[in-house]
Amino acid sequence: MFYYGACYYPEHWTAAQVEKDIALMQKARFNVVRMGEFAWTKFEPEQGRYRFEWLDSAIKALHEAGISTVLCTPTCIPPQWVYAKHADVLQEKADGTVQHPGSRCHCCKNAPAYQMLSEGIVREMAKHYAKMEGVIGWQVDNEFGCHGTTRCFCDHCKKAFREWVRERYGSTDAVNEAWGTSFWGFDFHQWYEIPLPRTMPAGPNPGHWLDFLRFSSDSQVGFQKIQYDLLKDLCPGHFVTHNCMGCFPDIDYYRLSDYMDFPVWDNYPNQAGDPLYESYAHEITRSFKGHYWVMEERSGTTGDASAGLMGEQPEPGEIRRWAWQSSANGADGIVYFRWRACLTGAEQYWHGILDHDSKPRRRYREVRQTGKEFARLAAALEGTQVVPKVALIRSFDTLWSLERQPGAVGFSYDRHCFEMYRAVKRQGLSCDMVSMDARLDGYVTVLAPSLSLVDETVAASLAAFVRQGGTLVLTPQSGARTMSNAMWDLPRPGLLAEMVGATVEEVRPYHQGQTNEISFARGSLIAQVCAVGTWVELLECDTAEALAEYRDEAFKGKAAITRNEFGEGVVYYLGVYLSGHILESFLRDALPRPFVEGISEGLEITERTGENGRLVFVVNNTAERKSVTLPGEFEELLTGETVGPNLKVSGNGVVVVRA
Amino acid sequence: MFYYGACYYPEHWTAAQVEKDIALMQKARFNVVRMGEFAWTKFEPEQGRYRFEWLDSAIKALHEAGISTVLCTPTCIPPQWVYAKHADVLQEKADGTVQHPGSRCHCCKNAPAYQMLSEGIVREMAKHYAKMEGVIGWQVDNEFGCHGTTRCFCDHCKKAFREWVRERYGSTDAVNEAWGTSFWGFDFHQWYEIPLPRTMPAGPNPGHWLDFLRFSSDSQVGFQKIQYDLLKDLCPGHFVTHNCMGCFPDIDYYRLSDYMDFPVWDNYPNQAGDPLYESYAHEITRSFKGHYWVMEERSGTTGDASAGLMGEQPEPGEIRRWAWQSSANGADGIVYFRWRACLTGAEQYWHGILDHDSKPRRRYREVRQTGKEFARLAAALEGTQVVPKVALIRSFDTLWSLERQPGAVGFSYDRHCFEMYRAVKRQGLSCDMVSMDARLDGYVTVLAPSLSLVDETVAASLAAFVRQGGTLVLTPQSGARTMSNAMWDLPRPGLLAEMVGATVEEVRPYHQGQTNEISFARGSLIAQVCAVGTWVELLECDTAEALAEYRDEAFKGKAAITRNEFGEGVVYYLGVYLSGHILESFLRDALPRPFVEGISEGLEITERTGENGRLVFVVNNTAERKSVTLPGEFEELLTGETVGPNLKVSGNGVVVVRA
Amino acid sequence: MFYYGACYYPEHWTAAQVEKDIALMQKARFNVVRMGEFAWTKFEPEQGRYRFEWLDSAIKALHEAGISTVLCTPTCIPPQWVYAKHADVLQEKADGTVQHPGSRCHCCKNAPAYQMLSEGIVREMAKHYAKMEGVIGWQVDNEFGCHGTTRCFCDHCKKAFREWVRERYGSTDAVNEAWGTSFWGFDFHQWYEIPLPRTMPAGPNPGHWLDFLRFSSDSQVGFQKIQYDLLKDLCPGHFVTHNCMGCFPDIDYYRLSDYMDFPVWDNYPNQAGDPLYESYAHEITRSFKGHYWVMEERSGTTGDASAGLMGEQPEPGEIRRWAWQSSANGADGIVYFRWRACLTGAEQYWHGILDHDSKPRRRYREVRQTGKEFARLAAALEGTQVVPKVALIRSFDTLWSLERQPGAVGFSYDRHCFEMYRAVKRQGLSCDMVSMDARLDGYVTVLAPSLSLVDETVAASLAAFVRQGGTLVLTPQSGARTMSNAMWDLPRPGLLAEMVGATVEEVRPYHQGQTNEISFARGSLIAQVCAVGTWVELLECDTAEALAEYRDEAFKGKAAITRNEFGEGVVYYLGVYLSGHILESFLRDALPRPFVEGISEGLEITERTGENGRLVFVVNNTAERKSVTLPGEFEELLTGETVGPNLKVSGNGVVVVRA
Repeated sequence: MFYYGACYYPEHWTAAQVEKDIALMQKARFNVVRMGEFAWTKFEPEQGRYRFEWLDSAIKALHEAGISTVLCTPTCIPPQWVYAKHADVLQEKADGTVQHPGSRCHCCKNAPAYQMLSEGIVREMAKHYAKMEGVIGWQVDNEFGCHGTTRCFCDHCKKAFREWVRERYGSTDAVNEAWGTSFWGFDFHQWYEIPLPRTMPAGPNPGHWLDFLRFSSDSQVGFQKIQYDLLKDLCPGHFVTHNCMGCFPDIDYYRLSDYMDFPVWDNYPNQAGDPLYESYAHEITRSFKGHYWVMEERSGTTGDASAGLMGEQPEPGEIRRWAWQSSANGADGIVYFRWRACLTGAEQYWHGILDHDSKPRRRYREVRQTGKEFARLAAALEGTQVVPKVALIRSFDTLWSLERQPGAVGFSYDRHCFEMYRAVKRQGLSCDMVSMDARLDGYVTVLAPSLSLVDETVAASLAAFVRQGGTLVLTPQSGARTMSNAMWDLPRPGLLAEMVGATVEEVRPYHQGQTNEISFARGSLIAQVCAVGTWVELLECDTAEALAEYRDEAFKGKAAITRNEFGEGVVYYLGVYLSGHILESFLRDALPRPFVEGISEGLEITERTGENGRLVFVVNNTAERKSVTLPGEFEELLTGETVGPNLKVSGNGVVVVRA
Repeated sequence: MFYYGACYYPEHWTAAQVEKDIALMQKARFNVVRMGEFAWTKFEPEQGRYRFEWLDSAIKALHEAGISTVLCTPTCIPPQWVYAKHADVLQEKADGTVQHPGSRCHCCKNAPAYQMLSEGIVREMAKHYAKMEGVIGWQVDNEFGCHGTTRCFCDHCKKAFREWVRERYGSTDAVNEAWGTSFWGFDFHQWYEIPLPRTMPAGPNPGHWLDFLRFSSDSQVGFQKIQYDLLKDLCPGHFVTHNCMGCFPDIDYYRLSDYMDFPVWDNYPNQAGDPLYESYAHEITRSFKGHYWVMEERSGTTGDASAGLMGEQPEPGEIRRWAWQSSANGADGIVYFRWRACLTGAEQYWHGILDHDSKPRRRYREVRQTGKEFARLAAALEGTQVVPKVALIRSFDTLWSLERQPGAVGFSYDRHCFEMYRAVKRQGLSCDMVSMDARLDGYVTVLAPSLSLVDETVAASLAAFVRQGGTLVLTPQSGARTMSNAMWDLPRPGLLAEMVGATVEEVRPYHQGQTNEISFARGSLIAQVCAVGTWVELLECDTAEALAEYRDEAFKGKAAITRNEFGEGVVYYLGVYLSGHILESFLRDALPRPFVEGISEGLEITERTGENGRLVFVVNNTAERKSVTLPGEFEELLTGETVGPNLKVSGNGVVVVRA
Repeated sequence: MFYYGACYYPEHWTAAQVEKDIALMQKARFNVVRMGEFAWTKFEPEQGRYRFEWLDSAIKALHEAGISTVLCTPTCIPPQWVYAKHADVLQEKADGTVQHPGSRCHCCKNAPAYQMLSEGIVREMAKHYAKMEGVIGWQVDNEFGCHGTTRCFCDHCKKAFREWVRERYGSTDAVNEAWGTSFWGFDFHQWYEIPLPRTMPAGPNPGHWLDFLRFSSDSQVGFQKIQYDLLKDLCPGHFVTHNCMGCFPDIDYYRLSDYMDFPVWDNYPNQAGDPLYESYAHEITRSFKGHYWVMEERSGTTGDASAGLMGEQPEPGEIRRWAWQSSANGADGIVYFRWRACLTGAEQYWHGILDHDSKPRRRYREVRQTGKEFARLAAALEGTQVVPKVALIRSFDTLWSLERQPGAVGFSYDRHCFEMYRAVKRQGLSCDMVSMDARLDGYVTVLAPSLSLVDETVAASLAAFVRQGGTLVLTPQSGARTMSNAMWDLPRPGLLAEMVGATVEEVRPYHQGQTNEISFARGSLIAQVCAVGTWVELLECDTAEALAEYRDEAFKGKAAITRNEFGEGVVYYLGVYLSGHILESFLRDALPRPFVEGISEGLEITERTGENGRLVFVVNNTAERKSVTLPGEFEELLTGETVGPNLKVSGNGVVVVRA
């Protein structure tokens, strides 16, 4: 079933208004709303006194209108009575600054009082709603870690971190060994000596830091697990999820997803300047468990609560296009944020489908049209999903390591992963975004951009994939570090050197916008020259062949890019950061063939397949008309017409063909 | 009587030096000095032991030389013995950082010990100086809120804020309703639950925040009131004032002025790059009570105490011109800051009339010349004042709301008010700068730029003004919010919609420098086209006519500017932010006719009127010679010559004619 | 003896690796290593239990290989057991933020527990190593004040500061007088009232601030003294030093050097964009006591621990050139940082001679070649030293005063000193960098750039130097302040006015990039015109003659640069900041003649002289070939060939001739 609806807050409005709202929702073909994520103070105005009637009536009225409810646990914002009794639930920043109440996300997930009270309200809600008609599932809390709150430095966290470290390492000697505490005399002999990496004069120990980030992520995972277990136990018929934030870097969503039936995410397009960045986030989220929803889909201006700014209006056609782009990348539900802009509170400028005055305007009309379209295609979509032949390894461990120590000015691991992703996507190929420990069999090509942290298990997994005929693409900084964030005492790329068939003779960070030139000696880019910068590695080939070499006199004979046959497969190693068209061209040799080739910039083509066949989506992510050549004539499902081979797609247009 | 003098610090110098200083002051025709504002430690070196002799002798010597004294209460900087006994008088920032002693303004106005000790020293001074010859008035404290100290987050303030909220709302339910605490689950059931809006992960609740700003401003007002009441009681013959800071945004100076006989302000020109910005501040201050002084008029380099920078030297002629510009906008007293640069302390680089070595140089000579001129015109100025036909509503509530939530990147309420003011001023018209609750009868035109916070009272006041024949000019964001900083659940401009005769169909913040074009369909700008950005509102006319429309295909037919006849008057609504020449041209239709028309850029023309007639001031705010056509021949009062109709004004020149 | 080696960390590696390392060191002709500076936790893993065996074996193995050891006291980083017992050893920032353990330099030098424990470990080490073969000297701690830790605001420092002030002034009245506490009512009557200049609303009192900086510097000096006295007492045969940081501004290295046998510094070239900036730092360090080493010489990428960035690779030839540049400016020892990049810890990216994988690559080969060269020249270098005829006064008091209150935007005292230094150096002259209280006899020319703080002693010293025939060059802001950081109540340049023969009529800070023009009326620049900015002083000549005047109409007749004959000597006063070529040309008249004239940009020429004659070094600080004309033919010591008069020097090339 395809879910379509909005986030809704009956606690902000009168019963009369709710009635009017439901009528408008029905016209837009809504079948779901999400409710309750910040309403703890409404549910439990005094400790132990519970009030659910206000929500029950809304759920009932919606259900009667054919609209199901996804409930949220409201643990993100405890009621005010909590702080008077338990001031120690408030987070602390690295410098000791307390995160005070008044907004959200200020509580420490390791604070015992917060954990206890959270479990209490979730248990009561679960008991109350387990059998209520209309309720179909749960979102735990809301956007863990939002506003930089994943990492807390309070005393509860200090104790919890020591426990976490003890559990991971067993002895302080093992900690000393893993973190390499010999450097800057940081040895531990007692567990109680282990500090949090708080404000300090210079940078922290990388092993200490990475483990603190893992611990901070695990603290969120642990909080999710408590609620997940409770909800699955008390509400066996309901699904449980959490709304992730796309490329949000602070939480290992692969681990978090262990305690969800499927993940959802909150999609606010046009924030990174490239529509494929949203696809990147869609595919990241889908890859956690193979299915997902968009739980907050933009339907108006955003409204930055900190800066007090109203974002731009969606242009006509964009709301519909974003929804279809979501579906095209695998979303099985689309829930707009929010039904109507709130009159009060920090997000006054965050518009929903309706403005403050409730008058339905062009955004509502577009949502209604889209609702009708999804209703028409619901059967066709049923059972289909995106199933890529390409995977990209995006490792949270590496992200955390390189975000702290990027090496070169301007290097961003996430941006580099996106550049690589984009080059795949531009070929018309979807891409699973997998963790280091993912199973790789079934993929034709695996990209592992700047996979810095590598141990024997990862190296063996990659080697096995290649030996069995896979194609692997590696880029600079690969294999430099152990899982403890130490440097390997091996020539780069460390444990990957054998499959690469080459080693790094010298790494050269370029900080002043300095660049170098490489020329391609083989492959489809032969004789081309391109400038490279940021970070350059001089390679020495062993069994590999050089595909590109440096033109600089000083580096004569050093390879920049190599290709090595290994087992039945091939390993490419890029000692330089390519991007844009040159990267797209370069990768073509390493990738499988897509359904459509030569896709012009701005068009996005994806496939959802299932037992009932294959749907191909053509989404025009621009405001201009675009054309594309399909491999034949096909039935277009939104219009029922036959299209192709020459297809014109209007600005913000969407075409869905059965192929 | 026109007052002319300087801020003076006898506590910094020897008696012999004071004697020499007074002789130089007399030559410059001084008749007033201001003294004592940071000298608490001199007055009360130990708790309860008072020492006034050092100042008495200076007052006496000055008085004998014909120079009166304005005394300051020294409460801005308590003596060092205070902190050892009462560490809790120190302010706290939002993140908990304590404001330590060593500079100034570090005490919390809600700290009981600070209040008690302040009252003590003021009482002793008032008793001591009530009848002393030469003393004519008092400045309470100094520049409340300077260096960002209006808002304190200490525990005393937390308690005081809770009291303030309780007094305002009566019940926590009323608070919940006003602030809209349903958003982000922020309900209160006990007074002790109400927090200060301290450091928190995301932005604060706008109602909570606005009330905290009101409370912070009221805390200053309350501190002023205590001293005002005491001084008026003990020194019935003295005036009482406080030195405001022009456009300083943190304190509601309208309310503060309730506890002054007249306000004064501190004028440091050339800090905003436009000489009319000083006029803007002059008119703001004058409008508090109709009369004012400049209590600190720049006479040398400034000297940034935090950055350790020396400001630029006044160019030859500028000190005189600033003094005359002050008078031309209504100042009845001009007190230079400061007599001489201090040898020590944080403002070593803040030069006065004299340099550190006391040698009179060109700045002294210019002050002396200006003193003679004011002496010559004293009789003519007597009883005159600036009496504008135009008023501009500049609301502290709206300022505080929009400074926190400007909506669009780069929008500044104060800057917009100044743009509007400037367009009036450029026509040769002065302008009262009034609060929302001002009486509007008597004005021909009222401008209410971006008057976001509007309730029934304000709407009724504006409607009455228009109905009786007034012209009202409104600009974007008008009427969007309630007085509680909630959004109205009405189409914008909310309660003003009827008089505007149009509503806003869509607001469009433009963040990326994006612009749009409008074309004028009627009025004096007909057929002109201009680019608009920052924030654009698409208007739907009801009874209004469209003066300008959007040219963009997508907004075809949407109005950008409207004009509506309402009662006997007219309401203009600008859905776009105009500025510069186009704004000046547009407003011409809405404004009364000035004494002189077609004033070239850089000239400023004002009038002071009284029972004895009318003085017209022509001030050349540039270094280049300018010319202007007067409506006839007039007597020039500085030279005694007849001038006009063609008048040339030298660079930095000043002309005063009797008209 | 010329020392050559590297910083080495046997605690990071296995014994087997140490053995291999020593073999490679021998091939590079090493005769010294530095060890132990962060190893307190290895030396004293539990309080009072000492472990030295791990280091003893390394010292022994090195000694047997002909490599001596400089030991460091490890007080920079106490073991973790310290914090559990003594949390009060941690530094506090001005806003109260605690500096937590996890990196380095976080302890307060005034904390009694830290002082006691530091003395304990140093005493044990000194006793243990006093007679051990191979150990030749000690470095106390490491880079005092690194990462902004010179200044601590904890309660221990508050008490120590009060003691320091009491010792300096004797009475609070004297403090009030010196600091000028009358300004902003800051008088003290009890010692316990004196605060630290912590976070406050506006800038601090300059006298208070300067004394706090002096105190902070003295706190480092006192810490050095304790260890120096202890080591000299227990290890009479060893030298004692500390590794300074070149132009590091926070510690008065002149005073610190009182407790060293000779200073050393840590040289990381190419951080200021001008190779002469390293020479500047070399000459600063040499001038402390006449001799010095480089204790950390760059041999690889740097690795910013805070930003997580890897610096640029030394280009081929640079490591060798930097070493020779060090020697050419007087270094008697060169110790590379570090032997090998560490696998763990915050400086993972800080490469040494070897990479993480220990494979000797081009950097090792260059170090080995350079080692052979130094071995060849060791005898010739023996007993020689740089002995300049020019001195530049670089005052820490003035630096501290002007860093807090630079007066003009963009003015930097250190940068100005460097500009002046550079203009001397570009003539082929070396320059001693001396303190205000240095003996000046023996110098031909003394430059005292922006010597703001001047008392009678300094003025008398400069006057005596000039009277006896010396040439003195002064620049803007000279003589403006007392030693207490008050302004003099005299016309600028205050006590220097008589010898200058002119006074300053007006100072003009230029903040907006505004400039002015001067034209030269006399001297070698006659008739030239040049633009001046930042800060301009209008001069009135008394006995001096004007060398340059302002061209601006408004300043007609005001001098910009003057020359005054005073006694047997000459005083130049520059009322403007000259730089680059114009400054070089201007200074030529004021400087002695060098060995070689007309040196092209990028070449550096220095001399070391001794009983055995004179060595002239020609270092090419660029990658391009350069030529220079020597005054005849000379023996080149690296090649043994005869060179000159026309000499070509290859890129990064070094030539050493006996002259």
